[in-house]
Amino acid sequence: MKITYDGTNFSGWQKQENATTIQGTLENALKILLKEDISCVASGRTDAKVSAYLQPVHFDTTKMIDKTKLKNSLNGILPQDIKVLDIVETNLHARFSAKKKTYLYKMYISNVDLPLLKDALKISPTIDIKLMKKFIKKLKGTHDFSGFKASGSEVETNVRTIYKAKLVKKGMYLLFYITGNGFLYKMVRNIVGTMLNVGEKRIDFNFLKQHLFDDYKSTFTAKPDFLYLLNVEYQ
Amino acid sequence: MKITYDGTNFSGWQKQENATTIQGTLENALKILLKEDISCVASGRTDAKVSAYLQPVHFDTTKMIDKTKLKNSLNGILPQDIKVLDIVETNLHARFSAKKKTYLYKMYISNVDLPLLKDALKISPTIDIKLMKKFIKKLKGTHDFSGFKASGSEVETNVRTIYKAKLVKKGMYLLFYITGNGFLYKMVRNIVGTMLNVGEKRIDFNFLKQHLFDDYKSTFTAKPDFLYLLNVEYQ
Repeated sequence: MKITYDGTNFSGWQKQENATTIQGTLENALKILLKEDISCVASGRTDAKVSAYLQPVHFDTTKMIDKTKLKNSLNGILPQDIKVLDIVETNLHARFSAKKKTYLYKMYISNVDLPLLKDALKISPTIDIKLMKKFIKKLKGTHDFSGFKASGSEVETNVRTIYKAKLVKKGMYLLFYITGNGFLYKMVRNIVGTMLNVGEKRIDFNFLKQHLFDDYKSTFTAKPDFLYLLNVEYQ
Repeated sequence: MKITYDGTNFSGWQKQENATTIQGTLENALKILLKEDISCVASGRTDAKVSAYLQPVHFDTTKMIDKTKLKNSLNGILPQDIKVLDIVETNLHARFSAKKKTYLYKMYISNVDLPLLKDALKISPTIDIKLMKKFIKKLKGTHDFSGFKASGSEVETNVRTIYKAKLVKKGMYLLFYITGNGFLYKMVRNIVGTMLNVGEKRIDFNFLKQHLFDDYKSTFTAKPDFLYLLNVEYQ
């Protein structure tokens, strides 16, 4: 399935007792419709308040399914915050078959809070965008991203490859796109947090760039509210 | 003052007993700060749920005001949904000196509800945009817009001049901009409602265009949630 969600009012993707999650909500809806217990696997877990324009999800079933009918029924019973865009039959594993993921972090440049701009982080017009661009150039390639990982998460390797990282100004929006073969826990938010502190000159970029992938340890985790999973590529 | 607001949770601009309005909220904040009763006049009243990217508002006071300080203090005590962008001293009357107003109605083209697109009306990909464009071309110029006025509102004349009306496709958004010397009560929403019904071919455009400004009476009032006051020009 390709699903999309506004994560604002959810405690993230992963099912938890006593918390409303995307996975839990989706599995409940599938159970009602398919009358069997369904386990959903997403391309990756999104944190509390993180949204997805597109999140691939797979599940296994032995039932014969009318995919269009299931999509419409799911969209009928799911809350407004989660919708199914498409359902196809596939042998792909939503997580293990994923080759590239793209996240988007939305910022907007303003001196004052703008009530109608709810989807982006307000940043000051004095921020140094050129310096931010210099920083993100350094991210491309294959590196050990330990310094951008939230502590307490254990994985086999902290090495990830970043294929693309760009900062695009669109009207008053400043949009950060990052594509990689995978991301460590809170890695995108730590990259954005560091980027913002570079732009605000609270981190010396000339010092930072020497130590980015050895002894730098990010203590700046950008708010999850403005992070969006944008696309996942397979094969 | 130039103010901006998300009207979703307000009962419109105009002050009312037992309802939360933009005017009421703003006047309360000014009373707290200036310690006198203040009456605010907007360029025009916006309906319940209608928002404004920019709404000019004036008030009279005999007090000396530090305008930057007042702006910051107002933004400190106003709710997140209303913010002051600028305060200047002026002889202009927010309503009577206004020469042109521009409204924006946001739509987006999609077969499925998209949780992350909250600011626009979902319209079907099968809608006939060319026909909608033909309809809005007919609006330009000076006409009697009685057929697009909500019943029950009495004004001296129903004649208004439309300077610009355009429909712009931007990604999956379809944006309708309309600029006039003024608008009757619910006129923009009735224009949008009619435009949508023309596009969906529920109104025969060839018949409609003969009768637009004589015996046509709109019964289609588009939802207020996606209407935005965009700009007001003076002088």
